[in-house]
Amino acid sequence: MKTKYFIVAGLLIVLLALVTSGQAMSQEKRVVMDRSQVRELNPEDINDWRGKTVMIFAPHPDDDLSPAGTMAKLVKNGNKVIVVVYTTGNKGSRDLEMTSERLAQIRKQEDIAANKILGIKEENIIWLGYDDGMLEYVPEKELCEKVCWLIRKYRPDAVFCHDAGTDWMQWHKTDHRMSAFITLDGARAAAYHLYFPHHRIYEDLQPFTVMDYFFWGSHEPNYNVDITDVIELKFEAACQHVSQFGKGNFKYTGPVMDTEDKENIRKRYMRKGPDGKMYENFRRLQGSRSF
Amino acid sequence: MKTKYFIVAGLLIVLLALVTSGQAMSQEKRVVMDRSQVRELNPEDINDWRGKTVMIFAPHPDDDLSPAGTMAKLVKNGNKVIVVVYTTGNKGSRDLEMTSERLAQIRKQEDIAANKILGIKEENIIWLGYDDGMLEYVPEKELCEKVCWLIRKYRPDAVFCHDAGTDWMQWHKTDHRMSAFITLDGARAAAYHLYFPHHRIYEDLQPFTVMDYFFWGSHEPNYNVDITDVIELKFEAACQHVSQFGKGNFKYTGPVMDTEDKENIRKRYMRKGPDGKMYENFRRLQGSRSF
Amino acid sequence: MKTKYFIVAGLLIVLLALVTSGQAMSQEKRVVMDRSQVRELNPEDINDWRGKTVMIFAPHPDDDLSPAGTMAKLVKNGNKVIVVVYTTGNKGSRDLEMTSERLAQIRKQEDIAANKILGIKEENIIWLGYDDGMLEYVPEKELCEKVCWLIRKYRPDAVFCHDAGTDWMQWHKTDHRMSAFITLDGARAAAYHLYFPHHRIYEDLQPFTVMDYFFWGSHEPNYNVDITDVIELKFEAACQHVSQFGKGNFKYTGPVMDTEDKENIRKRYMRKGPDGKMYENFRRLQGSRSF
Amino acid sequence: MKTKYFIVAGLLIVLLALVTSGQAMSQEKRVVMDRSQVRELNPEDINDWRGKTVMIFAPHPDDDLSPAGTMAKLVKNGNKVIVVVYTTGNKGSRDLEMTSERLAQIRKQEDIAANKILGIKEENIIWLGYDDGMLEYVPEKELCEKVCWLIRKYRPDAVFCHDAGTDWMQWHKTDHRMSAFITLDGARAAAYHLYFPHHRIYEDLQPFTVMDYFFWGSHEPNYNVDITDVIELKFEAACQHVSQFGKGNFKYTGPVMDTEDKENIRKRYMRKGPDGKMYENFRRLQGSRSF
Amino acid sequence: MKTKYFIVAGLLIVLLALVTSGQAMSQEKRVVMDRSQVRELNPEDINDWRGKTVMIFAPHPDDDLSPAGTMAKLVKNGNKVIVVVYTTGNKGSRDLEMTSERLAQIRKQEDIAANKILGIKEENIIWLGYDDGMLEYVPEKELCEKVCWLIRKYRPDAVFCHDAGTDWMQWHKTDHRMSAFITLDGARAAAYHLYFPHHRIYEDLQPFTVMDYFFWGSHEPNYNVDITDVIELKFEAACQHVSQFGKGNFKYTGPVMDTEDKENIRKRYMRKGPDGKMYENFRRLQGSRSF
Amino acid sequence: MKTKYFIVAGLLIVLLALVTSGQAMSQEKRVVMDRSQVRELNPEDINDWRGKTVMIFAPHPDDDLSPAGTMAKLVKNGNKVIVVVYTTGNKGSRDLEMTSERLAQIRKQEDIAANKILGIKEENIIWLGYDDGMLEYVPEKELCEKVCWLIRKYRPDAVFCHDAGTDWMQWHKTDHRMSAFITLDGARAAAYHLYFPHHRIYEDLQPFTVMDYFFWGSHEPNYNVDITDVIELKFEAACQHVSQFGKGNFKYTGPVMDTEDKENIRKRYMRKGPDGKMYENFRRLQGSRSF
Repeated sequence: MKTKYFIVAGLLIVLLALVTSGQAMSQEKRVVMDRSQVRELNPEDINDWRGKTVMIFAPHPDDDLSPAGTMAKLVKNGNKVIVVVYTTGNKGSRDLEMTSERLAQIRKQEDIAANKILGIKEENIIWLGYDDGMLEYVPEKELCEKVCWLIRKYRPDAVFCHDAGTDWMQWHKTDHRMSAFITLDGARAAAYHLYFPHHRIYEDLQPFTVMDYFFWGSHEPNYNVDITDVIELKFEAACQHVSQFGKGNFKYTGPVMDTEDKENIRKRYMRKGPDGKMYENFRRLQGSRSF
Repeated sequence: MKTKYFIVAGLLIVLLALVTSGQAMSQEKRVVMDRSQVRELNPEDINDWRGKTVMIFAPHPDDDLSPAGTMAKLVKNGNKVIVVVYTTGNKGSRDLEMTSERLAQIRKQEDIAANKILGIKEENIIWLGYDDGMLEYVPEKELCEKVCWLIRKYRPDAVFCHDAGTDWMQWHKTDHRMSAFITLDGARAAAYHLYFPHHRIYEDLQPFTVMDYFFWGSHEPNYNVDITDVIELKFEAACQHVSQFGKGNFKYTGPVMDTEDKENIRKRYMRKGPDGKMYENFRRLQGSRSF
Repeated sequence: MKTKYFIVAGLLIVLLALVTSGQAMSQEKRVVMDRSQVRELNPEDINDWRGKTVMIFAPHPDDDLSPAGTMAKLVKNGNKVIVVVYTTGNKGSRDLEMTSERLAQIRKQEDIAANKILGIKEENIIWLGYDDGMLEYVPEKELCEKVCWLIRKYRPDAVFCHDAGTDWMQWHKTDHRMSAFITLDGARAAAYHLYFPHHRIYEDLQPFTVMDYFFWGSHEPNYNVDITDVIELKFEAACQHVSQFGKGNFKYTGPVMDTEDKENIRKRYMRKGPDGKMYENFRRLQGSRSF
Repeated sequence: MKTKYFIVAGLLIVLLALVTSGQAMSQEKRVVMDRSQVRELNPEDINDWRGKTVMIFAPHPDDDLSPAGTMAKLVKNGNKVIVVVYTTGNKGSRDLEMTSERLAQIRKQEDIAANKILGIKEENIIWLGYDDGMLEYVPEKELCEKVCWLIRKYRPDAVFCHDAGTDWMQWHKTDHRMSAFITLDGARAAAYHLYFPHHRIYEDLQPFTVMDYFFWGSHEPNYNVDITDVIELKFEAACQHVSQFGKGNFKYTGPVMDTEDKENIRKRYMRKGPDGKMYENFRRLQGSRSF
Repeated sequence: MKTKYFIVAGLLIVLLALVTSGQAMSQEKRVVMDRSQVRELNPEDINDWRGKTVMIFAPHPDDDLSPAGTMAKLVKNGNKVIVVVYTTGNKGSRDLEMTSERLAQIRKQEDIAANKILGIKEENIIWLGYDDGMLEYVPEKELCEKVCWLIRKYRPDAVFCHDAGTDWMQWHKTDHRMSAFITLDGARAAAYHLYFPHHRIYEDLQPFTVMDYFFWGSHEPNYNVDITDVIELKFEAACQHVSQFGKGNFKYTGPVMDTEDKENIRKRYMRKGPDGKMYENFRRLQGSRSF
Repeated sequence: MKTKYFIVAGLLIVLLALVTSGQAMSQEKRVVMDRSQVRELNPEDINDWRGKTVMIFAPHPDDDLSPAGTMAKLVKNGNKVIVVVYTTGNKGSRDLEMTSERLAQIRKQEDIAANKILGIKEENIIWLGYDDGMLEYVPEKELCEKVCWLIRKYRPDAVFCHDAGTDWMQWHKTDHRMSAFITLDGARAAAYHLYFPHHRIYEDLQPFTVMDYFFWGSHEPNYNVDITDVIELKFEAACQHVSQFGKGNFKYTGPVMDTEDKENIRKRYMRKGPDGKMYENFRRLQGSRSF
């Protein structure tokens, strides 16, 4: 019943949004529209989602930790999570013996292990394979097309990525900057068949409009997800990234994390809010006002 | 008399600005200066402008709607308005039968019709012809030079464009981002003869300093223009963009807007403020502190 | 004694920072770490610095004036200041007789003279030689590598540059924008040996982590330096930039500044705060939370 | 028996080539080498090939006609032919009513039909989807990587492409120039695992060395293939490209070629050599001397 | 009568060419074709040309000297010559006092004076304004579009440019290389309306096919023009380029060439062939086989 | 005495060349010319050179082997040889255990060892540090400037590099292509002070004209150097490149070359000409006709 209510509310919202952005259409016309163009809004409460497809766009193989609790919950509720990782993370080590090819291999395994704990299968992780720290120097149009292609292919009900909002300017790794922008740019391009039209001509990939965005790392969060009951999963996932957190970043000795480092991670993750619960915060942008 | 007052005030402001930015000069020296270097500031109240040249830089053929009411007023008062449109808008349709060449042609006609209603002639619209959605992927220096050339050619008393301020980061089409920045960059380059010096060598285009900017779409507006008496013109102009607003975006059937769609647009445009009037809001930046 | 206190406090802060960012390590391990990886934080009070190396990254040959008072103090206290100037400033003249090669030569001499007054030697000024106003159009990866190389070479205890924060968006010369970002990007790359690994392979340049940033031109300053006792030096340094401030920008007649122009500069520089002192303000970012 | 002879001869040649290029190895060591590194040379006579995989890299959807006779023969003999088409050919029409999206669709169908006649299945045609005439303006490194990936994926016994030799300089469409070079560059990169190493890390794509190249359009042909018995297939394939040859290029009216145009094509294709046979000529480059 | 003969012959040739390249059409159909698509070939003998439009594409302001004799003859016979100069030539001086802006101005005047002698008016010289020696680093697609636009605008009966053939590889200034290629690339793009379609949409510039190319500096010349009777004009034109030839390149002292330098130029220009005549040699490419 | 003869002859040739290229000057004027502009030509016979500075530009750390015999002779005769290596060679291994950082280190040591045998000191090897196989994707203008800077810095009497002539087109590694062109382009830029003028302004690097080029790998060699008496040195130098020639390319096991591989290399190097001698062949380009 709650679900039904949200569907109705969602439809009202999407119609309102379309009207507001000057793309209104009469209700009786909707049935003849292409199926990709008009869809119900997602339920407001992410806990009510079932059977949804969610995509995460992470610049490095450990940035998917940011929304990891939310992902664990979504998977438990029968939603599908696709993780897109822009770079191989092949520079992020202070171990002077480490080489870039070896680091890429280590971090791939770490991320697979971490996602497995969250319930995300290896085949749902997509590796774009760019060099760590170099994402801003990749030809943008080509990168935009890749994101566009992925969006048209997987047609996600929601997209999670870094916030491209104002705050990141103060200090941001270049890859974070780029991933924040290009994810939005690619997603927007996906909505119109005349962008990269060969996707449709050669692969029958139809346009698709993302209707729900969740930005992590935002200074203007407007949506919280209670992850108290999955915090242990998130903690365990974080502990897979041995090459990144703790001594492994200075001297990598294998895929098992040092006890002391684990303890430090635990302390960071177990910070509770005033209500004794733990949250992941997002800036959420729903509807199509963005176009 | 009011005008006179503003001229005096303006001169004081510009001198103050020049002093502040370390570019002061003694008043008796001014007569020998190049005419392009020192000009009076525009009257503070845009309603007092006569015989001014104003340039709008719009990323798409309908973005010139944002300051359309202000433009209508300026034209009525005997000012000249030049509209520069960066892209052809050739991707912005959800009509799966639409092609990019056809859409470019349709939107050109829509924008000509819209501007005609505002009193802006077709010969005052300059089409740069870039692909819609691809402005960020255009070589920047070349684009900057084109803007610089246009500024030196038309020597506008004011420039209107998207706000390149902080807010746009949260969500902005790539073209909006790029047009906001490149308009400012090109305008700044125009002020110094050593940028793109062949403009002066081959075409005798002298340097020119823009002294008055109006940014639309800003979250920090500091200047309002009452457009109540031209709101019908603005509304009619908007209704020319059939391919963009309403059903025409989903299925284009010709250049006349559907009644229902018109009604929706009217509702959006007729929102009045607490004082019963309608305004266009800008962030205005006057003087030369920017250099 | 105060110094000692700060060392202890600094160590606590850096350890905290490392823990927070997941890169903690046990204290007994630290001795075996590479010396470049762990260093004490700088004293909180910049007046307490002795024997430090500080780098300024300035887009133009006069932008190093922004922190000039602070630099004068640092030099007096026995610290070393390295000035990196991105562009030659070869466009910044309204004198229609000026040519770009000549302007580059003039501004080089102006900047050498200005820095000499502050106590910074000519051999500590590094000229990257880019064209004024064109820094955003330089290949970014190559520029990033140059900054990275300089950081690894000079291993600065602190870096001063334009603020890459949110505010600059409203109005910023393109070179300022680019210098703000690329300084941070290059400095970050310097911290990991796998970025531009040939630096280490061919020149034995080890990775280096910048632990203290001071951003000038920020709207969110959090650190003030009292420059009252060196304000005359700063003023005299400013007066060397004859081609930039006052009549010399409109008609360059030689390296001695006009009396009237000097007076205008003096007025600007001598603005005192409520406490009768003069300050330079920075946004300071200390520790390694940025990684 | 002839085959066996060629295998022996081929092995001798490849060993010689490896020795010559300084990459010799003792025969007893070969068994421990990675299987991708050492392979027998193809039979000298292409008519003797069975079970081989051949890749064609064509800039436009009709350039695969150049070696079409040879392809028809190879397919008949049980070899697999993969056609890679760089661009959509979406500019190549003089029909002023034609649009680029429509032309791309038409040419896709034409090429599928043409290849079907030669015995090449639709699923063996790979469309890279670039804009016609713009291949030289595509980021080269990205394009090189795509070719490299395809080579590693399909591991062809021979590659056919435009000649990158000296002659093409006199007159060559830009796409031909680019496809000639980038095919070689990508194929060379494919041979070493350290180029684009993420192919191996993420997709287990092992390095692969192309050992046999056939360049069409060469002024220095050194290898002829008698296509007399498949000339009708080639002719029929050519006649599928209605939008390109004859009146369809000036006014496209549908997928059936005009009788007169067919007659003209036939005349061109049926030119016999002095021996009464018809040939396709190639510059062939066999072995690994190229590295 | 001779003219008539050539028209007939030319028509036969162009038809043959079209047939050969698969673009034949029946003669009765030609009247309905767009006028831009089918034109008569130029007379074989350039001395027979009347009322033709010829375009030269020169990388530097003195490269138009290469075909200067031919141009003088064409102008005398009532043809129109348009000179396009890619760069300002602003680097080509060994005079250490010279600056780039000043050199650009000097060379502009030299080229105007030289062309005036040949009968080419200042208004028929088009300056693209690029930096000398930097043409290869200009964004190619944008440069290609500019050439394409010029071709569509002026619709030349013949194009003269550097040879993009094989020989130039051995030693060629980068600008020569680039101008040779990009002239051909832009001219080819001009032939199809779907390249840079906004030319047609916004400016009604129709596609245009260049049918006659003359390449200078070729090692495979196939066409000679007897310039004996205009050699004095060519010599005088060369003598205008004081900043380039002789002492003026080492120390520029004004626009009048030194007597000794003139004598040296005369010696070079007055070299006669075995038949006592002087020629300009070209590789000529006529018809549309190039497409 | 022979030397003297060559000096006179050389002077005549250079004067002739200058006259021919329109840059003649009277002999009495020469003393006032900048010293960098006019220099004697090198002796025709390279065996007569003493005290010369020679620069080699090699794309990979083993390409300097091509002129190794000639270098050994030059060093013996008291000339200085500077080796510039564009890339680290960090991709050129078929050893699947090899990583790029390790390969760069190995090849650096190999090249140092090889050059030591030839008499070239480690401090005379300049490593530009680019990624192997990626030289064509490096921003060209930046690369050109680096070569220009090196030429102005070291002021070589002769430059050795790959041939940029016609032949390389048939098959050339991309790095070879790029190094051939960019070496010439950078060397040409070095001759004019207005290219990269900051070299002169900031570092007092004066323009310099290369007067003698030797291209290896040419199909049009016109100059032979008898290296019979240094062939053992060249052979030993080659044997240092263990990671490249022979089994070390497939499985690197350390810096000592396998006996069998050495034998293969010996066979290749000891090929004698009909006169029983061994030669290195070059296409030589002397004088300034190239400008």
